[in-house]
Amino acid sequence: MAVLSPIAWRTPPRQYGAWETVASNITEGLVARGWDVTLFASRDSVTRAHLHAVVDKGYEEDASVDPKVAEYLHISEVFEHAGEFDLIHSHCDFMALTYSGLVRTPVLTTIHGFSSPQILPIYHKYREGYFVSVSDSDRAAGLNYLATVYNGIDLSLYPFQDRGGEDLVFLGRIHPDKGVHLAIEVARLSGMRLIIAGIVQDEAYFREQIKPHLDDQNILYIGPADVKGKNELFARARALLHLNTIPERFGLVLVEANAAGVPVIAMNLGSCREVIKDGETGFLVNDVAEAARVLGRTSEIDRWACRRRVQQRFSIDTMVEKYEQVYSTIFDLEARRRS
Amino acid sequence: MAVLSPIAWRTPPRQYGAWETVASNITEGLVARGWDVTLFASRDSVTRAHLHAVVDKGYEEDASVDPKVAEYLHISEVFEHAGEFDLIHSHCDFMALTYSGLVRTPVLTTIHGFSSPQILPIYHKYREGYFVSVSDSDRAAGLNYLATVYNGIDLSLYPFQDRGGEDLVFLGRIHPDKGVHLAIEVARLSGMRLIIAGIVQDEAYFREQIKPHLDDQNILYIGPADVKGKNELFARARALLHLNTIPERFGLVLVEANAAGVPVIAMNLGSCREVIKDGETGFLVNDVAEAARVLGRTSEIDRWACRRRVQQRFSIDTMVEKYEQVYSTIFDLEARRRS
Repeated sequence: MAVLSPIAWRTPPRQYGAWETVASNITEGLVARGWDVTLFASRDSVTRAHLHAVVDKGYEEDASVDPKVAEYLHISEVFEHAGEFDLIHSHCDFMALTYSGLVRTPVLTTIHGFSSPQILPIYHKYREGYFVSVSDSDRAAGLNYLATVYNGIDLSLYPFQDRGGEDLVFLGRIHPDKGVHLAIEVARLSGMRLIIAGIVQDEAYFREQIKPHLDDQNILYIGPADVKGKNELFARARALLHLNTIPERFGLVLVEANAAGVPVIAMNLGSCREVIKDGETGFLVNDVAEAARVLGRTSEIDRWACRRRVQQRFSIDTMVEKYEQVYSTIFDLEARRRS
Repeated sequence: MAVLSPIAWRTPPRQYGAWETVASNITEGLVARGWDVTLFASRDSVTRAHLHAVVDKGYEEDASVDPKVAEYLHISEVFEHAGEFDLIHSHCDFMALTYSGLVRTPVLTTIHGFSSPQILPIYHKYREGYFVSVSDSDRAAGLNYLATVYNGIDLSLYPFQDRGGEDLVFLGRIHPDKGVHLAIEVARLSGMRLIIAGIVQDEAYFREQIKPHLDDQNILYIGPADVKGKNELFARARALLHLNTIPERFGLVLVEANAAGVPVIAMNLGSCREVIKDGETGFLVNDVAEAARVLGRTSEIDRWACRRRVQQRFSIDTMVEKYEQVYSTIFDLEARRRS
């Protein structure tokens, strides 16, 4: 089995890097269950699988690398070794698909999100391939989806915390899609403190819509957070605010917060409806006013119920079990094709 | 035979687009000599070969297209049809190389230039492939070069002009590499008028180092020039100025000017030394002062000698004959490999 991880970041990433996180969790989960896995990722990656690398570092972490060159080199490499594997499980989007027609080894693509409608022509061309969506809501029409497999996290990284604090927490990329400005509005309306953590992906947005509100007291930005930093934030959190303005594809951070027992207030949009159970593990809201209103009800949420739901639906084990079912479907289909 | 052209522009390009120009000249030259050729290029391309297209327009001419998506789609397409061809002649740089290991059809890559040292790892990985350089000076160490084949132009597009005019002409991308600022200095020193034509590739350079000198009288910028525009410029030209600041890879425009009978004053650097014969078809100079000095000697240049040299060395026929020799070398090597 080959797992093809992206090389924007190390696998697993040091901080941000959702696709690499999931590729890592699948790889380590498969190894734990006895699979013989080769992980194609950057050379500084950390894994119990065999590591196959042609690029030293993630191109987001190494200015000397041309991302285009690195991606062509990295992705073609797994296909040049296709004969050694029963299956290639790709997390490398449309790029990897363009090599899939040149090898006999079946290729499963987990679609972590459609970055733009401009990439759809490639998905359309290879629509007869094997695809997994990460939520029911994030699907394109006409592709041969075998299943939705929710992303799973390593629950041991996010220990349960009996009680939270009084702050609101935003965790994620600083980008308009993530509704950081809406989280600030909620903090204003509720008079609660908001702590913002994450990489700045949209500089202009940060400069114009976030930075002017920072005051070192009620609205704070603390930069990106690693696992330790996230747990510290969860300890201070009354709730995680995730008021995304476009349909979320999956939303790993919602699951991480829930694992720690933190209720999540998320927009009633996209995969949030699948990840958060309204009134049980948080609240699904339609606007800023509603978000501010439900803050008064966070004590109704049973923190253990939040963690339990993650254990049942969003753990690495659950995810890997589902992928094993998908793999065996593919092996059956391939055997039938050949006979 | 498959010819894989880039898809930045139409093949042949409407104006700028040196790689597409050469791919077109090779394709049409091969067809004229009886080869059965399929040209992989944008759908609006013009050719007497079979056209195979998956992208409607060059991504530089169509803002709705994502260049990355278009390139992956376009380049993989020829490899998915590799079995239909005896040879794939690629003009698509390092990207196409990453598919070459997945097919049995031999791939010849004409390297039109190394855009950056960052692309060398891919060339190094595939160094045992088949390569052609467009000048002896533009070679990377360690690659399996079969030959240098100079680019050839369609001489009928650039008719001989008995006499030129009094102006200096710059033709090319507006980019520091091309030394537009040096051409302006020469015009200043010599008191002659300079007409600048070409696409602006470096906006800051144009704004800061070119635009302030434009005066509608002695230093003029007229935008990009098509074939007709180039011929009009050649009619007004005492000389073409090409004071490139980095080694030129080939320099199609030098050949076009010479074909029209226009002497070329070029930097004594890179392929200019191979394209221009010093004192016969122009002058090779080392700095601006020398360029201004040799302007007094342009009458020594025999305009017919300029055209004759192009006919002999830089015509489509000459180029295609050389490529035919390269192809037959490859067929011999492949036959030997198989036996």
